[in-house]
Amino acid sequence: MISEGEYVLLYSEKGDKWLIKIRKDGVFSTDLGIIQHNDIIEKSFGEYVLTHKNRKIWIIKPSIYDYILKTRRRTQIIYPKDIGYIIMKLGVKPDSKILEIGTGSGALTTGLAWILEKDGLIDTYEKRSEFLDLAKENISRINPKASINFHNEDAIESTFKKEFYDIAFLDIDSPWLIIDKVYEALKPSGRIGILLPTYNQVDKVLPSLEKRFIDIEGAEIFKRELQLKHGKIRPLFRMIGFTAILITGIKIIY
Amino acid sequence: MISEGEYVLLYSEKGDKWLIKIRKDGVFSTDLGIIQHNDIIEKSFGEYVLTHKNRKIWIIKPSIYDYILKTRRRTQIIYPKDIGYIIMKLGVKPDSKILEIGTGSGALTTGLAWILEKDGLIDTYEKRSEFLDLAKENISRINPKASINFHNEDAIESTFKKEFYDIAFLDIDSPWLIIDKVYEALKPSGRIGILLPTYNQVDKVLPSLEKRFIDIEGAEIFKRELQLKHGKIRPLFRMIGFTAILITGIKIIY
Amino acid sequence: MISEGEYVLLYSEKGDKWLIKIRKDGVFSTDLGIIQHNDIIEKSFGEYVLTHKNRKIWIIKPSIYDYILKTRRRTQIIYPKDIGYIIMKLGVKPDSKILEIGTGSGALTTGLAWILEKDGLIDTYEKRSEFLDLAKENISRINPKASINFHNEDAIESTFKKEFYDIAFLDIDSPWLIIDKVYEALKPSGRIGILLPTYNQVDKVLPSLEKRFIDIEGAEIFKRELQLKHGKIRPLFRMIGFTAILITGIKIIY
Amino acid sequence: MISEGEYVLLYSEKGDKWLIKIRKDGVFSTDLGIIQHNDIIEKSFGEYVLTHKNRKIWIIKPSIYDYILKTRRRTQIIYPKDIGYIIMKLGVKPDSKILEIGTGSGALTTGLAWILEKDGLIDTYEKRSEFLDLAKENISRINPKASINFHNEDAIESTFKKEFYDIAFLDIDSPWLIIDKVYEALKPSGRIGILLPTYNQVDKVLPSLEKRFIDIEGAEIFKRELQLKHGKIRPLFRMIGFTAILITGIKIIY
Repeated sequence: MISEGEYVLLYSEKGDKWLIKIRKDGVFSTDLGIIQHNDIIEKSFGEYVLTHKNRKIWIIKPSIYDYILKTRRRTQIIYPKDIGYIIMKLGVKPDSKILEIGTGSGALTTGLAWILEKDGLIDTYEKRSEFLDLAKENISRINPKASINFHNEDAIESTFKKEFYDIAFLDIDSPWLIIDKVYEALKPSGRIGILLPTYNQVDKVLPSLEKRFIDIEGAEIFKRELQLKHGKIRPLFRMIGFTAILITGIKIIY
Repeated sequence: MISEGEYVLLYSEKGDKWLIKIRKDGVFSTDLGIIQHNDIIEKSFGEYVLTHKNRKIWIIKPSIYDYILKTRRRTQIIYPKDIGYIIMKLGVKPDSKILEIGTGSGALTTGLAWILEKDGLIDTYEKRSEFLDLAKENISRINPKASINFHNEDAIESTFKKEFYDIAFLDIDSPWLIIDKVYEALKPSGRIGILLPTYNQVDKVLPSLEKRFIDIEGAEIFKRELQLKHGKIRPLFRMIGFTAILITGIKIIY
Repeated sequence: MISEGEYVLLYSEKGDKWLIKIRKDGVFSTDLGIIQHNDIIEKSFGEYVLTHKNRKIWIIKPSIYDYILKTRRRTQIIYPKDIGYIIMKLGVKPDSKILEIGTGSGALTTGLAWILEKDGLIDTYEKRSEFLDLAKENISRINPKASINFHNEDAIESTFKKEFYDIAFLDIDSPWLIIDKVYEALKPSGRIGILLPTYNQVDKVLPSLEKRFIDIEGAEIFKRELQLKHGKIRPLFRMIGFTAILITGIKIIY
Repeated sequence: MISEGEYVLLYSEKGDKWLIKIRKDGVFSTDLGIIQHNDIIEKSFGEYVLTHKNRKIWIIKPSIYDYILKTRRRTQIIYPKDIGYIIMKLGVKPDSKILEIGTGSGALTTGLAWILEKDGLIDTYEKRSEFLDLAKENISRINPKASINFHNEDAIESTFKKEFYDIAFLDIDSPWLIIDKVYEALKPSGRIGILLPTYNQVDKVLPSLEKRFIDIEGAEIFKRELQLKHGKIRPLFRMIGFTAILITGIKIIY
């Protein structure tokens, strides 16, 4: 049974998806007709409800992928394909201590929090309070178990804990201004990740990483989707050609 | 301090990486000279040891990315870029109950186990015992906290728990032969993932997914690496053009 | 000076492009204002005219790239990136004798005709007369010098000249039905190209090529565009993910 | 019949290719055995000869694709996928007048010359005489009909004809030093192409193009090859990830 206050992913016959929070007596309108929240409350995940036009809408338990794509956003978000790679490359695990500079709309924070347990921690910094408020709201939807500490500060002026974090991730305009402090904040052998939207920034950040970080990699992750029509398999005509460049490295004592 | 029995990633000035297990009085030979394990034991992660030729080798705490790339393999493995996407798309989290058909060398199993906690579980099936033995060995390196149950069976003849798993992942030649049972084993609204090496298999598996699964997606994940020379940023000339096609979907009660 | 009857490419400050034919006293409306054809007639290529709103519109001599992108179409067209590769891979040159099965809207025919001289020839087959009429119109814009012979026939029932063509290109649904005849029509050592929209068709056509053709290649050509803002170089977010698969080979006497 | 002095492409059962010039009494050794040139002279294109080990080697009439891939090189060459796109984007045709700065090993020159007729022309500049000599040799293999004028000069110090060229192509380290002169050398509405190996150079060249050129595009062309095994269609695991960035534009009178 679905509970009030729970988030559900609705999936229509046409492939549309909506992420909604269940409220008693709530009503949700789609182009396939109206759905009563109360009808959903009586069902279990995996079942469907009918709209008033008798069209099926499936009730799905949202996964992190859905939460991220349905991030309410005031910034460019980080996509699941990139978050997945970040998790693997930086080695995020349930007890990771993570420093995030540039919360933005909180998509990455949500992705990381999905994997963290009680002994995990994220210190996330965002200077614009309106972004941080939105990020808090977005992250709250998944009820994170770890401590997520939101710092409404310009990280360039912040003081970080020393040699405390396993992982640091930077998604700000000028990461080179802050690499010194991030280096200090990371445990030796800790991992850094930097998201950059242009090649110019890649070039600019490199000198600040030299000597202090090894295994420095720059990568772009693409996703190419297939048309899944039986007998007519081909890639989709449209594709997202670029989201971001990911720079990663490992802190050393030099 | 590094302990005996611990795995460390060694990283040379030239960018070579080795994953080794520390043994008292052990010796490791590289093309940059010989390293004494005892020298490593006295150090901390992030520091370096010198070879007998006086070359630096950094001691790094291995992350899941390193464990996966250093998987001892007798099969094609699943790469971190793909594992990261699978984790995000299927929504793996610390308490996930996962059914894996086709353990192979255990690269994906290791990636999943990295994220699972005590209340997480993987039932993994592999008919070839030599693969399963290797997989066990590979996975043991990360000391998984969750229950990883290795089944040396041809999954086509196995009986699975009913509506027990949050996630099922299939990496076998003919997944269409087993979709019926996997459907039964998944909780409603549970997620399925299928790895396929050819478009012909994509076409063949589709009919078995129809009606019972929604949100069916076929995707390939690419990684394009950059040459990170200051003033000379460009993609690398060489690239892995293909690893696998990932099919995913959500179980519905139809 | 631009002549009446000539095609010109108009290029606006905003980057919009239009391919128009100059007519005395003609008028062309854009969202930046109205242009008099007579104003264009007085100019030379590379100069600009002003709209009645005083906005600049540049007068450009169209190139084959422009003609192809401005193909009036009733079918999917073949894109310049693919045509360029076909020309190179099949070795099109001014005196090539080319057999084209499936004229469609004539985009490839136009691209090939651009390179052919008087001693070049294209026999192009299209069963649907409405496509062929459109193709003729599209191709006539470049005043081809070579003989372009339009055959309004279902090529499956046509008789082709024997060992006459240097190159054959097939863009039809079921090329496997016609490979026998195409093989006969090609000179020994002649080149075949086949455009296919799905992997299923790739699989289906292969047996018909075996033994009789060598150097069989299947390729997709991608184009990834850059955002060219000084100081902010990055790929564009949007990209065409797929146009077609190109199969090529060389006829042998076996 | 094949003539002495003619170039032939030899194609082995294993898929190896060799481009050789036929000499009376010549001998060619392969890992499949020895071939007598005299045996080839008696054959026609499309037929095969037998090695002394009785293995088949097919005799193929080389196409521009083969000549380019078999370019003898002392520099990075421009690949057919890129040359094909350049031909389409810049609108190369049999009577084009082309200015090429940076002949290198002559791969692009050969590709352009393949399409030019007697009324076509290439002025190509290369400061290193050893490259130019090699380029001449490479281009001579296709017996070009157009005038190919080789200038052993540092183009930065050369004087070009004014408003003479339809197309200019630059493949040098610092194209920005020469754009002024190239602009003058192009006909109004003429097309420029610039090959660049790094994003830093893309950024650097942009200001020199502004205002004087429109329709400025930056693009990379990828080629992804398929494994063509019946029933097992998939992309190849290996792929060339990058060759070059192509910048193109159109000269305007501003």
